[in-house]
Amino acid sequence: MTGTVYLVGAGPGAADLLTLRAARLLERADVVFHDALVSPEILSLAGKAIRIEVGKRSGRLSTAQRFINKQLADAAGKYETVVRLKGGDPMLFGRAHEEISFLKRKNIPCSIVPGVTAALAASAELAVSLTRRGLARSVVFLTPRRAEGERPNEWARAALAADTAALYMGAGEAEAISRALIAAGKPASTPVVVIENASLARCRRFHGALKNLARIAAQGSGGPMLILLGEVYRESAIIAAWRETQSSSSRTARATRTGRARSGSS
Amino acid sequence: MTGTVYLVGAGPGAADLLTLRAARLLERADVVFHDALVSPEILSLAGKAIRIEVGKRSGRLSTAQRFINKQLADAAGKYETVVRLKGGDPMLFGRAHEEISFLKRKNIPCSIVPGVTAALAASAELAVSLTRRGLARSVVFLTPRRAEGERPNEWARAALAADTAALYMGAGEAEAISRALIAAGKPASTPVVVIENASLARCRRFHGALKNLARIAAQGSGGPMLILLGEVYRESAIIAAWRETQSSSSRTARATRTGRARSGSS
Repeated sequence: MTGTVYLVGAGPGAADLLTLRAARLLERADVVFHDALVSPEILSLAGKAIRIEVGKRSGRLSTAQRFINKQLADAAGKYETVVRLKGGDPMLFGRAHEEISFLKRKNIPCSIVPGVTAALAASAELAVSLTRRGLARSVVFLTPRRAEGERPNEWARAALAADTAALYMGAGEAEAISRALIAAGKPASTPVVVIENASLARCRRFHGALKNLARIAAQGSGGPMLILLGEVYRESAIIAAWRETQSSSSRTARATRTGRARSGSS
Repeated sequence: MTGTVYLVGAGPGAADLLTLRAARLLERADVVFHDALVSPEILSLAGKAIRIEVGKRSGRLSTAQRFINKQLADAAGKYETVVRLKGGDPMLFGRAHEEISFLKRKNIPCSIVPGVTAALAASAELAVSLTRRGLARSVVFLTPRRAEGERPNEWARAALAADTAALYMGAGEAEAISRALIAAGKPASTPVVVIENASLARCRRFHGALKNLARIAAQGSGGPMLILLGEVYRESAIIAAWRETQSSSSRTARATRTGRARSGSS
């Protein structure tokens, strides 16, 4: 038997941000190979499937990818519906190319199901358009992560030229990103938002300016983070700063009224 | 009563590329304001809703936007679930900002549901990753359409700096785009794909090089088109050219065998 391998975007995290097509494929999947980050709630849609975590994360050895390729091909020899479930969209930082070209060489049918990518989910959370009219006509999605042999900081030029930038898989290198962008000519005062766990209940947002990116990103608690920067975020940064002032002054007021200091966050 | 206005991404076109959240909202919507391009199949999910086409297309007068804003606010005064359905994703070239800020000023609850954007659906169709490892670490989404007061060709710099570029709403200006990019320094031989009706059964793809963009885009038949360019498309352009040769030589062979010329396309 030769089954079909479906490369499916799992979306940004929330189970109901899967597409209908993805949900239906999961329901009839015989086997699902999934990234480590895909939630149990999404996996539970694959009721009858064998579920295999292929824990590849950015930076691992390429043998891991070769092993995944082989697992997919082997599964297509045994099952009708093989799903390879990837966080976000498969064609944007999803390393889909390696799997697609391997399956093509083996003449295994392969179909790709797009998904909602993190930057779009983050924009919905923030209620800030990536391409606000009059401020932004271009948005670049990029990763500062390097494959072997690539030069560092080539990405900075793309981040500089676009009006808005969404940086994937960069929060761990926030200090270097901030320095590289400012060195390349991006104003240190460029508004920045870091979003952790976009689309999930535990979503958090941290606002600030490019020069403080390292400090902003350090507030995260280990969930996947996305860095957004550009003038479109100036308004929301001001609102966030104002709320911060309001809540700390109301904390102070309450503390004064009750006659004791309060340490809780609000 | 104050209902909630949901700005919902309708995705690239195929009804099953709606998110589960979008489909559920449509099912319980009391009224749906939708773009002209949203398909009858998607609208049929809004079984109990009043459906109102707000036929705003790029380039119309801003009064049209003000009228939509007012319609949304009025509807929220009468109904619980008001859906504003936009092609693709609302936060990417969706003009969401105008509606969100108007609703916020009126204290009307507003929630945004992200969607699959055309460039991701097109990439799935092509089976070509926007960010193929070793070739592309950045992809810019932009529109060469200008709002009033914006200078022409500022977008070219962003298209040049990113490894891959997806140009929305540009096919009608293909000649000008090609000239502007080449003048700005993009090689005339840069591989280009134009996709019409991405994700729909009537999807068509046209391959070529940047210097021939106008001729390539002219093959479309009036459906929404997306322009993709970058080195990641070199391989698929070669394959398409090879297929073209194969099918025309097999047409010639068949014509020779049967002893008459054939005019059909294959």
